[in-house]
Amino acid sequence: MAQQYVLGIDIGGTNTAFGIVDRRGNIVAKGSMPTKGDTVAEYIEALKSAVEKLKRDAGNISFSAAGVGAPNANFYTGEIAYAPNLPWEGVIPLAKLISEALNVKTTITNDANAAALGEMMYGAARGMKDFIIITLGTGVGSGFVANGELVYGHDGFAGELGHVIAVRDGRHCPCGRNGCLERYCSATGIVITAEEWLDTHTQDSILREYKSRITAKQIHDAAMSGDALALEIFDYTGKILGQTLADTVAITSPQAIIFFGGLAKSGDLIMKPVRHYMEANLLKIYKNKVTLLHSELPDADAAILGASALAW
Amino acid sequence: MAQQYVLGIDIGGTNTAFGIVDRRGNIVAKGSMPTKGDTVAEYIEALKSAVEKLKRDAGNISFSAAGVGAPNANFYTGEIAYAPNLPWEGVIPLAKLISEALNVKTTITNDANAAALGEMMYGAARGMKDFIIITLGTGVGSGFVANGELVYGHDGFAGELGHVIAVRDGRHCPCGRNGCLERYCSATGIVITAEEWLDTHTQDSILREYKSRITAKQIHDAAMSGDALALEIFDYTGKILGQTLADTVAITSPQAIIFFGGLAKSGDLIMKPVRHYMEANLLKIYKNKVTLLHSELPDADAAILGASALAW
Repeated sequence: MAQQYVLGIDIGGTNTAFGIVDRRGNIVAKGSMPTKGDTVAEYIEALKSAVEKLKRDAGNISFSAAGVGAPNANFYTGEIAYAPNLPWEGVIPLAKLISEALNVKTTITNDANAAALGEMMYGAARGMKDFIIITLGTGVGSGFVANGELVYGHDGFAGELGHVIAVRDGRHCPCGRNGCLERYCSATGIVITAEEWLDTHTQDSILREYKSRITAKQIHDAAMSGDALALEIFDYTGKILGQTLADTVAITSPQAIIFFGGLAKSGDLIMKPVRHYMEANLLKIYKNKVTLLHSELPDADAAILGASALAW
Repeated sequence: MAQQYVLGIDIGGTNTAFGIVDRRGNIVAKGSMPTKGDTVAEYIEALKSAVEKLKRDAGNISFSAAGVGAPNANFYTGEIAYAPNLPWEGVIPLAKLISEALNVKTTITNDANAAALGEMMYGAARGMKDFIIITLGTGVGSGFVANGELVYGHDGFAGELGHVIAVRDGRHCPCGRNGCLERYCSATGIVITAEEWLDTHTQDSILREYKSRITAKQIHDAAMSGDALALEIFDYTGKILGQTLADTVAITSPQAIIFFGGLAKSGDLIMKPVRHYMEANLLKIYKNKVTLLHSELPDADAAILGASALAW
């Protein structure tokens, strides 16, 4: 049997990355292009040219299917609907457009679900049938796997852990509600905490010099250098996340929770309090059973690999 | 092909009910016996005799498998571990014991999971692939179905919605934690609310005459007769449940939530506030999409049917 390949496409707000991937998760050729175009048709045309060039440059490798990870992408409908971070408005039949342009079966899902599939096929979740992936980036994304299958829900919209109410009547969220997890436990959330605390706490901190233009990176660096306020901010962030995860475990009872994304890179600064508060809040039958892991997909290629896993 | 039958067994704290069931959910013969015995071996011996008598009385119908619903029963291990409401202590290899006694393949799970399977096979969830069943009884139980399969979790303990923290730092729960959903939204919970409110609210109410020996039935009756405090108690109970369900929907995005159990029988008294507060707290993409339903299994037979669904 000839070696089989699929195409993985990761559509981000600014950039689109794509790669031809083998069954073992080796990216044999990859490329990228801006996510832009006055119309989606223009963008698809540019994507088609870029992918055809990639195939030629790689020695006319052909792929049997394409998988696409994109914000707000729906597995069932194949559509992207009202994605706030993409340049096109309304409902876009993305799977159909890409399938017609590249002439292969094309499946789409959102970024966090693609990441979950990538971890299951090539990464930290190999062999697992029940796990959760949490992406801690600008927002909080999540993908749930139960019985070895991604949980899409009846409408394809399952897994919005970032919009579970972590703090009742808490911070206002752009979604229109209050207290959503991602207003606390994302790169955005930790910055809001720092800004609030610099106003309400009197203690000295390196962070005071950045006031009102603070970044998650600066909070990380301050905590690494032993800044007490920055350490407390991580502890608080981990507490909110740990509490929410304890409730989440009571629903799907996963073997592991796998973390991915910028804030997860703060390592023990965030993971130690998450583990502590999750365990402290778990129902007894779940205690000391859930493994917290980091993504094992190589950073630069994780999104392409995740998308490609969808295609197999 | 000869008509096929399975045996459904529901083991409750005081009573064990069992029945021989066909594929369409008709119980062709049924019986019951007390859940007692100095040892579990004695109980199994009594169960064996009772089932053999049932088979003979029904004209020597034979069944090809048995399904058992029991508190704290684990699908994967086939064991019951430390069930507070059963007369035997420690870990009991229930599936093995029943299988050996009856000489058929035997599968066990907890009551709420059995109910979910029963609804999927014979009841309100026929044809559904993604739904949740919630039992509002002495406690709150839940069973989650995703992609047409029951979510057991990696260890068989998934679906403990009754022990999600509904009110942070709320009422103490016998599980050792505080604010668990079932301390608010079960028959037990609504009674606690009434007792608390009679102390802290000054308004007149029929319920005052029952003070400190109040029952869920009395609160129901008072609300039905228009008692303002009783109506507020139902509104509050529905609010806590609706808020928690809104968060739960964000995880598995079910097509429907099916309610079962004593408190669910209060009908609109509880379901109207649940629907109102759930919708008010749902993320926009989920609004007006989740159907709230009542169990369609006949009350007396629901547990046997649920257990039998496990056997197919």
